[in-house]
Amino acid sequence: MEGGAESVATRIMVGVNESTIKGYPHASISSKGAFEWTLKKIVRSNTSSFKLLFLHVQVTDEDGFDDMDSIYASPDDFKTMNRRNKIRGLHLLEYFVHRCHEIGAPCEAWIKKGDPKEVILHEVKRVQPDFLVVGSRGLGPFQKVFVGTVSEFCVKHADCPVITIKRKPGEAPQDPADD
Amino acid sequence: MEGGAESVATRIMVGVNESTIKGYPHASISSKGAFEWTLKKIVRSNTSSFKLLFLHVQVTDEDGFDDMDSIYASPDDFKTMNRRNKIRGLHLLEYFVHRCHEIGAPCEAWIKKGDPKEVILHEVKRVQPDFLVVGSRGLGPFQKVFVGTVSEFCVKHADCPVITIKRKPGEAPQDPADD
Repeated sequence: MEGGAESVATRIMVGVNESTIKGYPHASISSKGAFEWTLKKIVRSNTSSFKLLFLHVQVTDEDGFDDMDSIYASPDDFKTMNRRNKIRGLHLLEYFVHRCHEIGAPCEAWIKKGDPKEVILHEVKRVQPDFLVVGSRGLGPFQKVFVGTVSEFCVKHADCPVITIKRKPGEAPQDPADD
Repeated sequence: MEGGAESVATRIMVGVNESTIKGYPHASISSKGAFEWTLKKIVRSNTSSFKLLFLHVQVTDEDGFDDMDSIYASPDDFKTMNRRNKIRGLHLLEYFVHRCHEIGAPCEAWIKKGDPKEVILHEVKRVQPDFLVVGSRGLGPFQKVFVGTVSEFCVKHADCPVITIKRKPGEAPQDPADD
């Protein structure tokens, strides 16, 4: 089974996002869960067989959500905000890339802006991973109406197989819509 | 990364079914596709890291479908039919077990009777695989109304992550509902 098609690593795209919990550091609970599950159950110690591709989509209309109490008086104030968002996104990717380097798993990571559903679909078409891993908060039907589900959309529409890793019940924060 | 949790193989349950095409030998196109995809993209040459668990659900109310032109005059005639169904199911599993032995991948296979959706859910609860792989014909919404989708049901309700492998467009038979 060595050589030939085996020598090309299986490319796993992992959709990652930031935590919505104020003060929570960087990666969302479900992103971290999906990533750690992938390492433990798929990649295991066979790091040379796989390559991880981290995609983080920054939601444009949520820009400035954390800037609720800031005052914007000049265009420069917005530049600071954009820079801060960019830095936050980079810190998020740094978390995953750092973890991969620790265990010797090859990886790539990048940021795109837009609607997560559309951007993920577009990036799957462009990058053509072997499969996509997405985390999910594992919300019930009632909660889903309000918060939407990127994972279900990907399962239905992505041009590659998709595996959804639900957040463990024990890992859910007080408000299950948080992540 | 050797030893510890790494020494326990990742257990992959694969739902397999027979082809609906008359005369087509044993495994459905989508079952074979899902299985080969799992070998190529996940198991790769790391056969000792994984264990494949093949579940075949025999649909009870389809029993005798292939016996349309048979005449049943005594209870013994039905025994023959049941034996024939059982043999067909065993041949199906033989196909997958044989393939695993060829490449040295540990596996187990078994048959259950009942509604595929319910049985798969029940077996996932009982066997607790790390994830479930199911094939799908990749039908459009219009066709799905008539033929149902075991894969979508599993994605929604199974107690473990599920990965659905759609049949490639080039592999679809004349009637896409066939498999």
